[in-house]
Amino acid sequence: MSDSPEIKVDTTLGVTAPLGFKAGAAAVGVKKLSKKPDVGVIACDVAAATAAVFTQNKVCAAPVLVCREHLARSRAIRGVVANSGNANACTGEQGLADARAMAATTAAKLGAPAEQFLVASTGVIGRMLPMDTVRLGVENACTALARGPEADMAFARAIMTTDTRPKMAGARLTLRGRTVTVAGCTKGVGMIAPNMATTLGFLTTDAPVAAPVLDKILRRAADATYNCCTVDGHTSTNDTLILMASGLAFADAAAKPISERSAEGKQFAAAVMAVCESLARQIVSDGEGATKLIEIRVTGAASAAEARRAAGAIANSPLVKTAFFGQDPNWGRIVSAAGYAGISSGPETMRLIMGDLVIFDRGRPVDADADRLAAVMKAHDIAVHLDLGAGSGAARYLTCDFSYDYVKINAEYTT
Amino acid sequence: MSDSPEIKVDTTLGVTAPLGFKAGAAAVGVKKLSKKPDVGVIACDVAAATAAVFTQNKVCAAPVLVCREHLARSRAIRGVVANSGNANACTGEQGLADARAMAATTAAKLGAPAEQFLVASTGVIGRMLPMDTVRLGVENACTALARGPEADMAFARAIMTTDTRPKMAGARLTLRGRTVTVAGCTKGVGMIAPNMATTLGFLTTDAPVAAPVLDKILRRAADATYNCCTVDGHTSTNDTLILMASGLAFADAAAKPISERSAEGKQFAAAVMAVCESLARQIVSDGEGATKLIEIRVTGAASAAEARRAAGAIANSPLVKTAFFGQDPNWGRIVSAAGYAGISSGPETMRLIMGDLVIFDRGRPVDADADRLAAVMKAHDIAVHLDLGAGSGAARYLTCDFSYDYVKINAEYTT
Repeated sequence: MSDSPEIKVDTTLGVTAPLGFKAGAAAVGVKKLSKKPDVGVIACDVAAATAAVFTQNKVCAAPVLVCREHLARSRAIRGVVANSGNANACTGEQGLADARAMAATTAAKLGAPAEQFLVASTGVIGRMLPMDTVRLGVENACTALARGPEADMAFARAIMTTDTRPKMAGARLTLRGRTVTVAGCTKGVGMIAPNMATTLGFLTTDAPVAAPVLDKILRRAADATYNCCTVDGHTSTNDTLILMASGLAFADAAAKPISERSAEGKQFAAAVMAVCESLARQIVSDGEGATKLIEIRVTGAASAAEARRAAGAIANSPLVKTAFFGQDPNWGRIVSAAGYAGISSGPETMRLIMGDLVIFDRGRPVDADADRLAAVMKAHDIAVHLDLGAGSGAARYLTCDFSYDYVKINAEYTT
Repeated sequence: MSDSPEIKVDTTLGVTAPLGFKAGAAAVGVKKLSKKPDVGVIACDVAAATAAVFTQNKVCAAPVLVCREHLARSRAIRGVVANSGNANACTGEQGLADARAMAATTAAKLGAPAEQFLVASTGVIGRMLPMDTVRLGVENACTALARGPEADMAFARAIMTTDTRPKMAGARLTLRGRTVTVAGCTKGVGMIAPNMATTLGFLTTDAPVAAPVLDKILRRAADATYNCCTVDGHTSTNDTLILMASGLAFADAAAKPISERSAEGKQFAAAVMAVCESLARQIVSDGEGATKLIEIRVTGAASAAEARRAAGAIANSPLVKTAFFGQDPNWGRIVSAAGYAGISSGPETMRLIMGDLVIFDRGRPVDADADRLAAVMKAHDIAVHLDLGAGSGAARYLTCDFSYDYVKINAEYTT
């Protein structure tokens, strides 16, 4: 779950770092009034083996439906088109037609079948896409397609909504004597409580991996990283995480695909995990109005599911989150959140550690040093460890605090 | 769920309105620095048949454990002692001894066995009760025991924490030619997402009802009112709702107890429901930092459980709640919250009505009149009705908005 020791994550690497990928962006005014980029395209020189995970929200957006439709026909994907400023969710048949048109416009421009393109949208729910504007954006983004740090950054910016900064991460590893890269970018700082995936995340690699193996690796990584982070407990309608593998690190040879259980498969999976972990941390760090990044670790649960429920309840409690904003060591809120999460043990076996200070031990408060506790609460990164003392189930959640700015940002979002 | 047409609720009636009950309060400084009342006692002239529901939080407070212990021995209760400013939760064996001592001190003063007294505490978690102070408070509150509006108000104030106003409600009905009264008070404006009961609620009646019948009536009422209201989704460690029946409306005759299924049983149950509904509304209206009271009704669900999950998810979403604070008709947040609540239907059968305006209909946004929608969002009381269009399951939740003041109150609570 944490960065693997041998995998170094580089947050300057983006979607075009692996061989075979280009990216482009355009600012056309889907985000009204702002002149920020709002349409982005990723294109692969070859058909890339692709895995993707999507929101489990029953109210899911048109682009998610179109992605599922296209992936059901082919797991060989040539590119992705994305827009910010409008989620194309709750938009009925017209929304579906618009999402298909986004894929078709990109495909026509790049000379490939429409179903080899995936679509992603993010922004306000319930408004129709301004399709003339979007089509112009797609044209311009395709024209701008390029490799390198500027293209990486342009695409990462095109998918931002209330994000205050772009979020990229990549890792390089050596497989069979060659350098293989896994890299990507993500967005999203509100409506974040991913379930199977989050908001938008785009990963690319030049490793040779077949789609079914890619799928398993991506699901495992998403489950341990994206799906264990929260900003506000609200699972989006548009969550999408895509991993495209060009295989071009080995294009000169008839490269044997990486198998899941081989040493190189494990190394590759660790790289995907490390990149996802970095991106998920960047999301929570930039959580709407956030001033702190809090890592909630629950151990000693009767089962892994119990540990996850407890960690999630703590991570989502507005009372816990406002206390962290106030740098208030009001730990009773942490322990009581675990208590209502459907766990089978009680306070008499619990132990709560904040930073390196034990403050609650087997049902009783511990008089922790007030100055040291204040120092723990003042830090930007805070580690909370609740041991339920009842078994060996463990889980981890990333969350942020809840500030005036969260209220400000969300009280004023559409009006 | 809503006030029964024939039951008129009077919010000036408190715990001593039914015959046989006295109340008293004292201000002794359990709430440090404030001179507000913080210890309260309710006493019954006779042993009252009593029903109670408590928090389902696994981390439950010492007074809850002591109440369960006492009720297991006897359902005939002489009184309740309560304090605010300290929850006596997460306080281990010492906390249990302190809760027992609160009952014993009250019992000694009033000349009855300790196990005929129930105990309730509310306030900060994880601090030991200042028992010398609490004992003094119990003595003073017992000395102050009286009947009438002043006593009602004194007790209602003694249980307040961040409440901005006392919360009382009562109803009178005529049974067998006599006036019967059900009345009570409650507290709590944060850590409110009751599960089987909420925070503190004390109901009294002079109707003759046996404990098992009282228990069924109370559970049904709590489930439809207290358990369907939320301020922040955080179930407290101390939730307690107690209903004591003196039977003294009929003390001159050998009164036959009210049976559950009789016409008078139904009338009495409707009165308990109406009083609980009023108290639950008062809690949510006074929710920490709240500026609005929002009633979320979900109908057309595949089951009642689905409807309840959907209504609860909407009522607890920080995104929904901040949008109401901003008077922002960002209805996509409402529909998407239902979507992640584990419902079996999708947007294509949904219909969302805010106030009297349809704004989303079978998967498509409806162009509602902007001025009329703005008027709906500006009101203090807002009705939201989401019809899932998939069955006959229905549920209702009361919630409030999420404002800067919620953050302020909770970032500064203990420090």
